[in-house]
Amino acid sequence: MSQPNYESRRNRVRRQFRGAGIDGLIVSGLANVRYLTGFTGDSSWLFLSRGRTVLLSDSRYETQLANECPDLDVEIRDAGATIQDLARTAVTSGDSRHPGFEADHLPWSTAQQLIETVRSGSSVELLPVSGIVEGIREVKDRWELAEIREAVRIAERGFGVMRSSLTSHQTELEVREILERAMKDFGGSGTAFEPIVGVGPTAALPHAHAGRLQVQESSVLLVDWGAARPSGYRSDLTRVLFTGRVTKQMERVYNVVLAAQQAAIAAIQPGARLADVDQIARGMIADAGFGRWFGHGLGHGFGLEIHESLRMSPISDQVFQPGMVITVEPGIYLPGKFGVRIEDDVVVTKDGFELLSSLPREFESSFVEFLA
Amino acid sequence: MSQPNYESRRNRVRRQFRGAGIDGLIVSGLANVRYLTGFTGDSSWLFLSRGRTVLLSDSRYETQLANECPDLDVEIRDAGATIQDLARTAVTSGDSRHPGFEADHLPWSTAQQLIETVRSGSSVELLPVSGIVEGIREVKDRWELAEIREAVRIAERGFGVMRSSLTSHQTELEVREILERAMKDFGGSGTAFEPIVGVGPTAALPHAHAGRLQVQESSVLLVDWGAARPSGYRSDLTRVLFTGRVTKQMERVYNVVLAAQQAAIAAIQPGARLADVDQIARGMIADAGFGRWFGHGLGHGFGLEIHESLRMSPISDQVFQPGMVITVEPGIYLPGKFGVRIEDDVVVTKDGFELLSSLPREFESSFVEFLA
Repeated sequence: MSQPNYESRRNRVRRQFRGAGIDGLIVSGLANVRYLTGFTGDSSWLFLSRGRTVLLSDSRYETQLANECPDLDVEIRDAGATIQDLARTAVTSGDSRHPGFEADHLPWSTAQQLIETVRSGSSVELLPVSGIVEGIREVKDRWELAEIREAVRIAERGFGVMRSSLTSHQTELEVREILERAMKDFGGSGTAFEPIVGVGPTAALPHAHAGRLQVQESSVLLVDWGAARPSGYRSDLTRVLFTGRVTKQMERVYNVVLAAQQAAIAAIQPGARLADVDQIARGMIADAGFGRWFGHGLGHGFGLEIHESLRMSPISDQVFQPGMVITVEPGIYLPGKFGVRIEDDVVVTKDGFELLSSLPREFESSFVEFLA
Repeated sequence: MSQPNYESRRNRVRRQFRGAGIDGLIVSGLANVRYLTGFTGDSSWLFLSRGRTVLLSDSRYETQLANECPDLDVEIRDAGATIQDLARTAVTSGDSRHPGFEADHLPWSTAQQLIETVRSGSSVELLPVSGIVEGIREVKDRWELAEIREAVRIAERGFGVMRSSLTSHQTELEVREILERAMKDFGGSGTAFEPIVGVGPTAALPHAHAGRLQVQESSVLLVDWGAARPSGYRSDLTRVLFTGRVTKQMERVYNVVLAAQQAAIAAIQPGARLADVDQIARGMIADAGFGRWFGHGLGHGFGLEIHESLRMSPISDQVFQPGMVITVEPGIYLPGKFGVRIEDDVVVTKDGFELLSSLPREFESSFVEFLA
């Protein structure tokens, strides 16, 4: 499929100006800049007004910008100037009187300096705004969906290699290495994040680092991983494998998590509230007596970043729309013993949902037999 | 060597309260929290007052916190509360009246919400402060220096493996893979950042991504890489290798960069201004006629993060002190042709400097001979 239409994305941002009370926007969030320009470097801001598009960067990126964004106006600073200097000139020399800045991305001190330097020398007033580009990014276009599907496919193939080469003596770190390597071989440009590979007690840590535990030191192996495409788009999956004797408690925990996940996924459709879908899974886990051991949100948006603005949690006020992409990942973590989390990637369709990931998740399909 | 003394580090922060006009501090910068507690997770803030130390986190990290920071008070939020809620309670229920927040780390919107929520229900006023923990981190202690030395050693050994296995048909990505793998084998927990491996025109991009160019497609191969230790401490080095016929221009550019680097390093000592050391290298490159092609700063602090607060650039107002660690990395980039950057890691000593890195950097030592 062809490249994204960046100009059309920027015009979607412009159409939000009036509602946000602004007539321009300094985009400083790294992924937001990439989404609106295709530029893959950092330390660069995009200024949009009704009539102007200009990327503010520095000389390290001059050639890269000419390659990646040949149609964009670019202002380059040298080592004697700051990006705030460029921004001040851009916002005070054009057609904008009330430009916004991204209040969720600029640090307080940078924003405050910028507000003051702009105010002191002009009649332009900078205004804080939140979530404009992120809101547009919540709904994926066809090109983005194709990239995400490919990132899921690479992750699933990588998992297949890892699973089929698993031995009882491998450490968490060795398993992670095999998984990472396989995803690269299948066309990933890297991992979507540092993969979690947790044996037993490590699996009970929702955000564990892979370490030196061997697979044989517990019956539970949790793997939370994803692939990143060269385009930046990602996937995010979790599976639990049983590698030894499975206790009744393990089976019960696994099936509670799976049932909660399946019920939550089935409730995803346009118009559904994210907090309500969260509550379906959270309620089922609490009813089964494990509420104390599920403390994180049910899922999050992803795409160019591994965590984007959608959040399924009790305090979310968001509502599903077609084209939104989200993880569904309930978990139960029994400290010092083991943890189970099952995570799939879902896209909201016109009348419901579509699962983007297809690895088996039934209890019976989670058993690993080692060679003798 | 034993572990860092986190309590002593926190007390150094407390001793800065009076000068900064605060009586407490919400530490939200990821590396700052790690530096002061040893906690390796994210999404967590540390609140320090004269009499209290408390880490604000969520249930994903409960077990990890108990392992990594067993002596710390911890407040855990569940999925129905925000970290701002925890922070509000912490700062309004203790001995603090004018606590600070890290204005360089909190996004504008988060800081603004926090300022208002604290003000509305109490007589406590939150104040913006900058650079307190970063300033302390600029000077490394013995434990940190030992970790950084080890990260340099791992990077240098990795480079040795890469250099000795280099072939003319390898792509930039393949060279990067070999380098990354070797550093892991030598005890790195990963790379300090995505290594830059650039052939010819790619080397002319100061922040290039490794791609599909083969080594044989130019005589110039630039490698900018570093190792990360499990402790989080990093190294950052750059070397250029000549892999084919070397033109007079290549030789001249290389020797201008090397002379500028060596002169700058020789000027590093306690009391020297970072801007002055920058000017030594910048002036030599300009005098040689290449000023237009060196647009970035001369070097930066590093440690737990690959870019820390020290910056050698024309606009720096910092002064060297014993124990500071910095890169020295001038470069000349000829767009479309090639680039040369030479980067070493330096620690400021009581009466001068010590080079932490020792890979050869002379022009003659940069030639690679392939097997026939």
